[in-house]
Amino acid sequence: MQRPQELRNLFRLPLPRSFQLGSFPLRSHLRWILIRIVIKTFCGLTNTSIQSLERNKVASRFEVFALRLPPRIQPFDLYEAILKTNFRFKQNDIVIVSSKFVSISEGAVVQIDKIRVSHKAKVTAKKFQMDEKLTELVLREADQVYGGIPGFLLCKKNGMLCPNAGIDKSNIPRGYAVLYPHLPFESADKLRLNFINNNRLKLFVVISDSRLMPGRLGTTGIAIAVSGFKPVIDHRGEQDLFGNILRVTMRAVADGLASVGVALMGEGRESTPVVVVRGFEVNEEDRKMNWQDLAIDPLEDIYIRSFKSK
Amino acid sequence: MQRPQELRNLFRLPLPRSFQLGSFPLRSHLRWILIRIVIKTFCGLTNTSIQSLERNKVASRFEVFALRLPPRIQPFDLYEAILKTNFRFKQNDIVIVSSKFVSISEGAVVQIDKIRVSHKAKVTAKKFQMDEKLTELVLREADQVYGGIPGFLLCKKNGMLCPNAGIDKSNIPRGYAVLYPHLPFESADKLRLNFINNNRLKLFVVISDSRLMPGRLGTTGIAIAVSGFKPVIDHRGEQDLFGNILRVTMRAVADGLASVGVALMGEGRESTPVVVVRGFEVNEEDRKMNWQDLAIDPLEDIYIRSFKSK
Repeated sequence: MQRPQELRNLFRLPLPRSFQLGSFPLRSHLRWILIRIVIKTFCGLTNTSIQSLERNKVASRFEVFALRLPPRIQPFDLYEAILKTNFRFKQNDIVIVSSKFVSISEGAVVQIDKIRVSHKAKVTAKKFQMDEKLTELVLREADQVYGGIPGFLLCKKNGMLCPNAGIDKSNIPRGYAVLYPHLPFESADKLRLNFINNNRLKLFVVISDSRLMPGRLGTTGIAIAVSGFKPVIDHRGEQDLFGNILRVTMRAVADGLASVGVALMGEGRESTPVVVVRGFEVNEEDRKMNWQDLAIDPLEDIYIRSFKSK
Repeated sequence: MQRPQELRNLFRLPLPRSFQLGSFPLRSHLRWILIRIVIKTFCGLTNTSIQSLERNKVASRFEVFALRLPPRIQPFDLYEAILKTNFRFKQNDIVIVSSKFVSISEGAVVQIDKIRVSHKAKVTAKKFQMDEKLTELVLREADQVYGGIPGFLLCKKNGMLCPNAGIDKSNIPRGYAVLYPHLPFESADKLRLNFINNNRLKLFVVISDSRLMPGRLGTTGIAIAVSGFKPVIDHRGEQDLFGNILRVTMRAVADGLASVGVALMGEGRESTPVVVVRGFEVNEEDRKMNWQDLAIDPLEDIYIRSFKSK
């Protein structure tokens, strides 16, 4: 019965006679079931929180849910679609939505066949062994193109480093491509305001995308927009465990959350473009934000500057 | 009473007379308390899983716990230290340990004052405005140095891109520096085997570090070693929602988990170097792994090659 001895030690109570339900002779382990029941139900405690009460060693705890939504290709209302899951959101939940799902909801989908290819796109496509029409689309959508490797152009889009300007041909019918969301911060704010106005729910929103990290195999998540909380915690000037002043430490909370989202969203047939994080503490921020709250100019970055400094 | 009507609908059961505890007349809401007790205790369901039963829209779900451990500076047994938290691990839990905590446990701590500075370190320190002794240490520890920006050298260490060769002066008494773990995959395997041999618990282990991503503000997590599961899921050749074959998609599961860990671990005074992820599905892998399971040679990477291709 889940270590009655430990529970007994924890509460250090001799069993009062009242737990014996009048004169009905309960055996010892049955009494402990009853105490467990009383604790769990009337204090509203789950197994886990009993554990943490017992031990007081769990400093913090959060939960993550992946919501299944039907695949879409036509524009739709993002808020309504999420509501239709009937998931019971709670105050301070963090809603992570895949950027592709946001793009599709806003109709940022292009039929590739219909694109006319420029001379520049032909040259670039040849150089990097890419599809000409996709290359044309990338050149049109990118704010800047830094270079490429076979199959990919490394671009800047909305202030962020972004392979192929965020254009993606997977999880959309053949012959179509999904663009980067047009104004991701506005989309995040709109979703958040819908929850506040219609459900009186103060949620936080992250729009997530997946990216390669330098030198790594496989993609992790980055936040391309947030609403309602500070995406980066600046620890500079704080003290560490030994009283040293922390110098350069900023924590990319929104990217961490996006990684949680991307880890559950999958890339293939899972169809779980919305992930909810519950119990993770963020710092509220009501101000309207933009890409500079998440990113630095790519050319001021340690990786790129290091390779240029040789 | 947490919506008895919905619970009633869920289980669609008329109240049997036996729930009335013999002839003792329980009021309606008390009966529902009792049913709740029975459901929660004997079926082991938490509030959340009741929700998901009701709705069947949550595709997957996991929980994350941050464990508080006392700060250390002397070598210690990592497994014993984690056991001392008395956290109740379950089968298939994923244990994420900060690389710094691993390093300290293995005595990879250096007194900076005692380092003799070479001529090369002096020149490099001046060029990148760094402390001479730290520079010397970085040059000794790095497998390769690619370049730098003021305050940092971008190095390769154990096959991975690593600012300052992973050497860190925070969360350790002034005058000391923590090195990168000597053999992180061995450390991860050892921790996992300890749990198997001593507790019959098949856990998975990630050793996490924090890194900047190109162009981003703030750090997220990367896995510098794993034990027991495939760190990268290769989706190439699988089909997406519309039957397109996925071409280049590999998912860095271990990096995603490390990001979850780093998001909770904090950087300052939190002292939570161990994070447990419960309920997240990984692909088991018993083979001994190395850095090539997590990383590619930095010079084959899209970012670095793109900037060189200009």
